[in-house]
Amino acid sequence: MICKNLTVVSDRLLFAGRDLRELADKYGTPLYLMDEDRIREKCRIYRQAMQEAFGENSTPVYASKACSFRRMYSIMREENMGIEVVSSGEIYTAKIAGADLSEAYFNGNNKTDADIAFAMESGVGYFVVDNEEEIDAIGRIAAEKGITQQVLLRITPGIDTHTYEAIQTGQVDSKFGSAIETGQAMAITKKSLETRGVKLVGFHCHVGSLVFDSDTFLRSADIMFSFMNEVRAETGFVAQELSLGGGYGVRYTESDPELDLRANILLVGKQVDSLCKRFSYPKPKIILEPGRSIVADAGLTLYTVGTVKRIPGYKTYVSVDGGMTDNPRFALYGAIHVPVLPEKMGETEKMICSVVGRCCESGDILCEGASLPSRVERGDLLAVLTTGAYNYSMASHYNRIPKPPVVMLSDGKDYVAVRRESYEDLTKFDL
Amino acid sequence: MICKNLTVVSDRLLFAGRDLRELADKYGTPLYLMDEDRIREKCRIYRQAMQEAFGENSTPVYASKACSFRRMYSIMREENMGIEVVSSGEIYTAKIAGADLSEAYFNGNNKTDADIAFAMESGVGYFVVDNEEEIDAIGRIAAEKGITQQVLLRITPGIDTHTYEAIQTGQVDSKFGSAIETGQAMAITKKSLETRGVKLVGFHCHVGSLVFDSDTFLRSADIMFSFMNEVRAETGFVAQELSLGGGYGVRYTESDPELDLRANILLVGKQVDSLCKRFSYPKPKIILEPGRSIVADAGLTLYTVGTVKRIPGYKTYVSVDGGMTDNPRFALYGAIHVPVLPEKMGETEKMICSVVGRCCESGDILCEGASLPSRVERGDLLAVLTTGAYNYSMASHYNRIPKPPVVMLSDGKDYVAVRRESYEDLTKFDL
Repeated sequence: MICKNLTVVSDRLLFAGRDLRELADKYGTPLYLMDEDRIREKCRIYRQAMQEAFGENSTPVYASKACSFRRMYSIMREENMGIEVVSSGEIYTAKIAGADLSEAYFNGNNKTDADIAFAMESGVGYFVVDNEEEIDAIGRIAAEKGITQQVLLRITPGIDTHTYEAIQTGQVDSKFGSAIETGQAMAITKKSLETRGVKLVGFHCHVGSLVFDSDTFLRSADIMFSFMNEVRAETGFVAQELSLGGGYGVRYTESDPELDLRANILLVGKQVDSLCKRFSYPKPKIILEPGRSIVADAGLTLYTVGTVKRIPGYKTYVSVDGGMTDNPRFALYGAIHVPVLPEKMGETEKMICSVVGRCCESGDILCEGASLPSRVERGDLLAVLTTGAYNYSMASHYNRIPKPPVVMLSDGKDYVAVRRESYEDLTKFDL
Repeated sequence: MICKNLTVVSDRLLFAGRDLRELADKYGTPLYLMDEDRIREKCRIYRQAMQEAFGENSTPVYASKACSFRRMYSIMREENMGIEVVSSGEIYTAKIAGADLSEAYFNGNNKTDADIAFAMESGVGYFVVDNEEEIDAIGRIAAEKGITQQVLLRITPGIDTHTYEAIQTGQVDSKFGSAIETGQAMAITKKSLETRGVKLVGFHCHVGSLVFDSDTFLRSADIMFSFMNEVRAETGFVAQELSLGGGYGVRYTESDPELDLRANILLVGKQVDSLCKRFSYPKPKIILEPGRSIVADAGLTLYTVGTVKRIPGYKTYVSVDGGMTDNPRFALYGAIHVPVLPEKMGETEKMICSVVGRCCESGDILCEGASLPSRVERGDLLAVLTTGAYNYSMASHYNRIPKPPVVMLSDGKDYVAVRRESYEDLTKFDL
């Protein structure tokens, strides 16, 4: 199977060792399941590999936009992970979970004045500053509050990762960061060093998502060290921190490569060492920002099959009781997710079909060209795999469909982390 | 301008006659504004044209998925509009607004047993039945409740409207309806006539969205009457109702055609008359289901400009304090919306730019290749036009961003129809 937390016993799919019918009966469908043990395992892989690769003070920082709710921040705190936040809403959620915000990094291309003030009042340790206007705003608001804000600068290294267009962020033509090529990276660096209320501690870059090759991170490190060397020559500033961003890919399908995270991170560690040596640069604290790779394969969504529409000469549509409202990744990116029937794992007669949602919208598709048992029928359980990232966090109420709950699985137990929305909840904002 | 509710006075944009800075200061940004007078005007255009075209008992039915919140259903009730609902959530919302559900049509490709029971308990007048499994479920649940449920059957006429792929629904290869071509439409008709607890009253079709030509509706009518004639020949059943669906286009840009709704509907009326004559068919009650064309140009979204990023040799990015979370139409469909600076309408020096949102996601784009005043700067108001349909209804909480409020404008007054979400609201489901 795609991930080791998926096993088949007596022709039934187990997830995190649990029978899925039992969970569906207990909580209803659609249902987000999250394998807490897998999340913790991934955090530890990152921590251990990074300490080995970059030294004791390096930190993995969880990019919480991948999956953000209160309990996630508690788990990250328990696992000694830093956190990356991108909005006041994420900061608020982390706060009520008791997160240590002095280890939080606040990212985003367009922080409003209100966001900046809220983050400072919440004690967010680091702003990852996107652009010069933001430096002005931070300086002004920090001065009003009589504080000095630590910042990293988001630099655009000019790398194109050749993944989906919508998740490329490292190329010069991007809404994110200040580009080295155009001189804007050096300009914002000088400005930060001169702005009162702002304390520059280092640099940040992030080149994109779904990266499977180590080459991307190695190239980022090259470019960033070369830039930091220029900065030191021009201004004397030496970076104490360098974030190389996130982006390691995960297996959505059997044909996606199996990524050896530890080996990849160790390679980056060697590169950093050699760059420090080449430029005689004191080794900065290295940060990585995994989001998807912490949570994606810890998630599985359970649905109940409704209509099975066989259109002779055309296609078969298998409808489920969720769809683009709980997982918009196909609608947005044409992203591939694998569906299976957990109670019909032994069936060998398969057909190609589309798994579609219940929204009144043709684009409401979960999986195209999926292979499912031919005997799929109304009432069957259907699981979509690898849904831990960018599913709950991107969910909408389109067609006035309430969001499913998130149930965590840990050590053979299950508990609700986010409760199911009711119709009363949906309409409580309507006056 | 695109719609007559947009006017420019002293180089400032007025919407529904209102100054936008005043509304932004009162309610904050991002802010959905809805022109209630325009909504009512559109309802009346439909009602009057349909009565003229199809006779007294014809009804426009508001496809509420385009924009669904409590107040919308009250307005529809006051305007004597029927309503189309596609989920229990929409039914619940209509109910608390005091809508007359005996005039409601319940659509959708995958109604769960729970939905069917809830709709029956709520007194929904008509189910628009998608497929044979649904007939079974309705018959079974109606029998349990000791009622007879009126139904229309959703028929797939086999028309391709050549609009965006995601909004084509009339072709045979669709998740919606039962196709005439494959014999499935006749089969479900016979099944409905034989199923206890189900009372067949007519047929429904819907060929897609953003239709500007009258030809599409004329062809639908041709195909449907021809099918109804066959049904009468084979079974003796005569349809009392025929819904030709929705789909009339709206002007998102100046280059979109100006659609004369009344003239178009009158043309369809002539066609229906001639078809009734040709087939000696008693004229059924004709239903149209406008959604987008009722609300789209009644909506405008106000944002505040944040970062303006000019990347020499590449592009300029204008960031606003909302984005794909409140308007995912570009991210989903590449849909075009026009942005303007309401307080800089007189500026003649323009530039081409991308208007992007504040999400940590490259695909978070509102408008590509937009023309805006070159002197756009942080703090400017920015309005995106024609956002009344499929904006609020598709909004998400991605990046933990709360949904903006919906403020209605009517007769020079303004009031909150949906209140702004707080951070407490966002996290109240987190345990």
